[in-house]
Amino acid sequence: MMKTPFLHPDRLFPAEGMSRSIARELYQQVKDTPILSPHGHTEPRWFAENDAFPDPATLFVVPDHYIFRMLYSQGVPLEKLGVPRVDGGWTETDSRAIWQLFASHWHLFRGTPTRLWLDHAFATLFDIHETLSASNADRLYDRIAERLESPDYRPRALFERFGIEAIATTESALDPLDYHRKIRESGWQGRVLTTYRPDSVIDPDFEGFHDNLQRFGEITGCDTGTWQGYLDAHRKRRAFFKTFGATATDHGHPSARTANLAPKDIEVLFNRISKAPATQADAELFRAQMLTEMAKMSLADGLVMQIHPGSSRNHNRGLFERFGRDKGADIPTPTDYVVALKPMLDLVGNEANLTIILFTLDETSYARELAPLAGHYPALRLGPAWWFHDSYEGMMRFREMTTETAGFYNTVGFNDDTRAFCSIPARHDVARRVDCAYLANLVTTHRLTFDEAHDLAHQLAYGLAKAAYRL
Amino acid sequence: MMKTPFLHPDRLFPAEGMSRSIARELYQQVKDTPILSPHGHTEPRWFAENDAFPDPATLFVVPDHYIFRMLYSQGVPLEKLGVPRVDGGWTETDSRAIWQLFASHWHLFRGTPTRLWLDHAFATLFDIHETLSASNADRLYDRIAERLESPDYRPRALFERFGIEAIATTESALDPLDYHRKIRESGWQGRVLTTYRPDSVIDPDFEGFHDNLQRFGEITGCDTGTWQGYLDAHRKRRAFFKTFGATATDHGHPSARTANLAPKDIEVLFNRISKAPATQADAELFRAQMLTEMAKMSLADGLVMQIHPGSSRNHNRGLFERFGRDKGADIPTPTDYVVALKPMLDLVGNEANLTIILFTLDETSYARELAPLAGHYPALRLGPAWWFHDSYEGMMRFREMTTETAGFYNTVGFNDDTRAFCSIPARHDVARRVDCAYLANLVTTHRLTFDEAHDLAHQLAYGLAKAAYRL
Amino acid sequence: MMKTPFLHPDRLFPAEGMSRSIARELYQQVKDTPILSPHGHTEPRWFAENDAFPDPATLFVVPDHYIFRMLYSQGVPLEKLGVPRVDGGWTETDSRAIWQLFASHWHLFRGTPTRLWLDHAFATLFDIHETLSASNADRLYDRIAERLESPDYRPRALFERFGIEAIATTESALDPLDYHRKIRESGWQGRVLTTYRPDSVIDPDFEGFHDNLQRFGEITGCDTGTWQGYLDAHRKRRAFFKTFGATATDHGHPSARTANLAPKDIEVLFNRISKAPATQADAELFRAQMLTEMAKMSLADGLVMQIHPGSSRNHNRGLFERFGRDKGADIPTPTDYVVALKPMLDLVGNEANLTIILFTLDETSYARELAPLAGHYPALRLGPAWWFHDSYEGMMRFREMTTETAGFYNTVGFNDDTRAFCSIPARHDVARRVDCAYLANLVTTHRLTFDEAHDLAHQLAYGLAKAAYRL
Repeated sequence: MMKTPFLHPDRLFPAEGMSRSIARELYQQVKDTPILSPHGHTEPRWFAENDAFPDPATLFVVPDHYIFRMLYSQGVPLEKLGVPRVDGGWTETDSRAIWQLFASHWHLFRGTPTRLWLDHAFATLFDIHETLSASNADRLYDRIAERLESPDYRPRALFERFGIEAIATTESALDPLDYHRKIRESGWQGRVLTTYRPDSVIDPDFEGFHDNLQRFGEITGCDTGTWQGYLDAHRKRRAFFKTFGATATDHGHPSARTANLAPKDIEVLFNRISKAPATQADAELFRAQMLTEMAKMSLADGLVMQIHPGSSRNHNRGLFERFGRDKGADIPTPTDYVVALKPMLDLVGNEANLTIILFTLDETSYARELAPLAGHYPALRLGPAWWFHDSYEGMMRFREMTTETAGFYNTVGFNDDTRAFCSIPARHDVARRVDCAYLANLVTTHRLTFDEAHDLAHQLAYGLAKAAYRL
Repeated sequence: MMKTPFLHPDRLFPAEGMSRSIARELYQQVKDTPILSPHGHTEPRWFAENDAFPDPATLFVVPDHYIFRMLYSQGVPLEKLGVPRVDGGWTETDSRAIWQLFASHWHLFRGTPTRLWLDHAFATLFDIHETLSASNADRLYDRIAERLESPDYRPRALFERFGIEAIATTESALDPLDYHRKIRESGWQGRVLTTYRPDSVIDPDFEGFHDNLQRFGEITGCDTGTWQGYLDAHRKRRAFFKTFGATATDHGHPSARTANLAPKDIEVLFNRISKAPATQADAELFRAQMLTEMAKMSLADGLVMQIHPGSSRNHNRGLFERFGRDKGADIPTPTDYVVALKPMLDLVGNEANLTIILFTLDETSYARELAPLAGHYPALRLGPAWWFHDSYEGMMRFREMTTETAGFYNTVGFNDDTRAFCSIPARHDVARRVDCAYLANLVTTHRLTFDEAHDLAHQLAYGLAKAAYRL
Repeated sequence: MMKTPFLHPDRLFPAEGMSRSIARELYQQVKDTPILSPHGHTEPRWFAENDAFPDPATLFVVPDHYIFRMLYSQGVPLEKLGVPRVDGGWTETDSRAIWQLFASHWHLFRGTPTRLWLDHAFATLFDIHETLSASNADRLYDRIAERLESPDYRPRALFERFGIEAIATTESALDPLDYHRKIRESGWQGRVLTTYRPDSVIDPDFEGFHDNLQRFGEITGCDTGTWQGYLDAHRKRRAFFKTFGATATDHGHPSARTANLAPKDIEVLFNRISKAPATQADAELFRAQMLTEMAKMSLADGLVMQIHPGSSRNHNRGLFERFGRDKGADIPTPTDYVVALKPMLDLVGNEANLTIILFTLDETSYARELAPLAGHYPALRLGPAWWFHDSYEGMMRFREMTTETAGFYNTVGFNDDTRAFCSIPARHDVARRVDCAYLANLVTTHRLTFDEAHDLAHQLAYGLAKAAYRL
């Protein structure tokens, strides 16, 4: 019945009349704004070595947990999608076969953001204007594979084509940042920053924690066998990360719990967890105390602090044993902020020079806890809709449930949070469209003037991220 | 101001322009699709005996807890609505008086699904095209009463008129299934299936649990005084239910907790709860273990497993003592799935041949827990919006909060879940309309093509239920 | 692009076509309906003394925690907004400077209800039809200041101009109600009622609790050192409040927990908490028991009971020490109703002559707990969207998540709940507009007829509040 272009110019806008016109007009003003990507997981190696990306399956399917979790949920074995096994056993290596299997399940993604992102990448990068299917899979494979060989599709060329003004990667506190050094030494002007992610030396439950502590001491020259030496190691390492552009730290804890123990008690706790396997209670308490310590260091060195709590990691035991971490089996859990953050906030919540950005996988906290907290404490800001909620409905709920209490200026713009490099323009485009749709709804219900919406569209696409992440 | 038909042909569709047109077009394709009712509570006796339904009040008011709970909440005593008392004391028996009382409170149902269902039944079955009220109550009573006497309004005739392809009833594990046998022996071709509901022999808190266990042994010839004999009784009984068409089991536990104890520990637990009144902890643990046992049996015998957790039953003590169970005083409670289901999922979650359908009364779990779980585990599917959420807004929230993470194909179509036989076409009609409205919104915001929406409308109305329930 | 009036006549209505027309038509019928304000925090002193309000900053900025919390969240010190310090130290006293600071941060309120309320007050009271900003702050200050000096802007004149039929203030159980007496003795006909708020003599954690108990005894002539004397004091005091028009009580507990202890146990508990500082467990249990006692007294004396649970008060320790209570640092917490209310409901839930109005800051309880409870228990009604949720989206969510289960008639209309007198017409206007928008959506999706919507618009604006609060 409808004759519509493959990528509709009005996608994600309100369906009708004036609301659509206004969304369209707002979007025109921000669609070509440079991309700020202050939180993500692309590999600095790509920009350092600038090698061609491999074939379509290895680029789009094998590393993308959004994709293989959905196929797995419908009975497709991960082996057939080329996901490597812990024991090195057989998995599919024929990229064309993996691509064909993926294409024949493309209908599973109807209504999901993955569909929006890939359609956008296919259309804008590879001039593909048809829906992927079992029958066109081979032809589209060839089209993509051919383009990937061209110099125009190397990482640095794409970076420039995407209009990225700055992108942050995320590295472990133990990372030597060699690729970041190589980028810098190459003379290429693309702005790639690192982010300080110390989970491996903060979380007693992290694999190899005690070895990590020792290595942390070696690379910093600090005595990480003592509490003060351990803190010094963090300080040194944060300073080192800053020399490679870091403006932020990131903390992926199971909960948002913080603590503010007496110095004597911390030392006793540190001695316990640094010498022997930690009890669950000690591990949780140490992580809690370290959020407060990181906040104190941020106050001193100006790094913005990001807290990403509330994921039950590796929920599927069998899958974890066979394929390892990050295989689509991380499940959100209810997350408390009001009680959890209080010890840290009592100490630093009133500091206007400190920025702590809170994320959540538990949308029930938006209106009940996060917006009231960020709408009061000078140190708090709200990160954008995260992970499972990085989607049309997810972003709408985020705005509808936070704006009336926290306003727009206690939020920090968009994070693409991705390792899927080719999806970055699509993700920012989705966020800009949804924000313009939301703003248009405010304008057509006369809660905002058009001029204010115009200004806010720019803030949400660019200004708030630049300010909050000190870019 | 508006001149509209009593049952508007566009009801539940988006209000405006293109969205409404597309919803209308999608709905045209599915409105006459046969009804699959894979989970419900109609009485097999109706189809076995095929007697005329009694008067309007006894058909529509007295047995419907949606109706009498609402009147009760506004101060109408249940006695006056003819609800039987436990002590056999007086309740109203004049059907016309009950009907009049009901009609004079009809305004209470404005904005509720009960209103939609009854309007639909009144209009399509009884040619009533006016709003029920105190002043027309008598006249409408006569109209309905007259029709109910006609052979066209007997259960089997209505079954055929409703276009039901298959309907599942729900019977206790102890039920002899005599009515199902009688249906079969009658030669009537209507497809009425049973469902295995073993709560009365699994839940130590169930009334008469120890007597039930003994009876369970007698009818199966198994020694239900031992753990192995008890499991054998389940296996035999499940097989017996399968001979009467059962494709599914159903489990109505207070929580979604599962367990996977060591065999020795289970036996000790079984011996405790089977011999004496169980402690609360033992009862909860036994129910948890039995969900895992039922999943294991489902893996062996192919019965689809349904889990309906999270209702605080009989919350109103006084009412329970006076009128017994199921009198509108069941209240939903917060329900955890991530931790609760893990023991069972560690054992069988990766089985692609097993289907476990999860329901919830706690909508906060849709986006946070259920969609991520069903979007990963091959054994899991999501049941439709349930009970209090079987409504326009409830269904919209279900789709908006699950689709982006779990897609459409990890859901299982619609369940009417009702004992109100005459409301079945209305309930399916509401579900089809809301799904078409949702799909139309996706089309007009260009998140889906019209052709995909067309295909999905059919899947949501028919295909997914047929596949998931193995009908 | 758009040329729109400052206060758009269609604000908050659906954006398009038929939905907007219907909302408009419904609103026309209720926009001039008298205001009932059955729960709020205006000062009876205003109406007793009828003095002019001071300058714009003291009227609109300094006492409004919605305003100063937002500015504080963006780094503006409360001292600069003139908020008094506990230690009497310096805070800004130049009203014009405070106003200028406020105006220069006006963009922070984009998308918030504060923006809607103040725009409405500015336009309707002061003929201001432009957006407040740093550059027009001085001019608008002068305009407002000039008007405030006129007799037409004194409290009683505004009361009449606002069309207030009745307003309830809230007083501590210890308040002598002198201002209410003075209003009565003045002969002025404005109907100002008090409300019985006994938190200071019920909550063992309240500042000065033991002194309060003693004072409670002195003013009632009861022996508040004994349980029976203490109950008598409440009875006497409730009767005294009734002589000043009270039709309701109000209870602001941290949780909704209730208890129904054996008489002997209560006396022991009372003796403990009345003689010495209470443990946390004792304090919680005593508050729980007292909700039940208050419900029993309400059954006897007809006062409507309001329960406002779930706020973590004074979350910001540093701010509390510096500025005291109610400074925008109250944060909602998850709130249970199903288990918490059961002891009280077992005792009085089935009483149709008792009205207990439940409020929440935890929207997850709307569909899951509150609507099912209010849709069943005769004694329960749902209060409107409260505090952080007293907003366009908050009110929409309230209706969308409660109506399908509890209907409209188990809700009680709107509460403005404010101490910001000049915002009262704006708040009722927002509520009436949002309700009309919601009703229009029901009409255009054919879930309600226009005539029913018309009737309901009046009920939601006036009728339900009048009935529920017995005004």
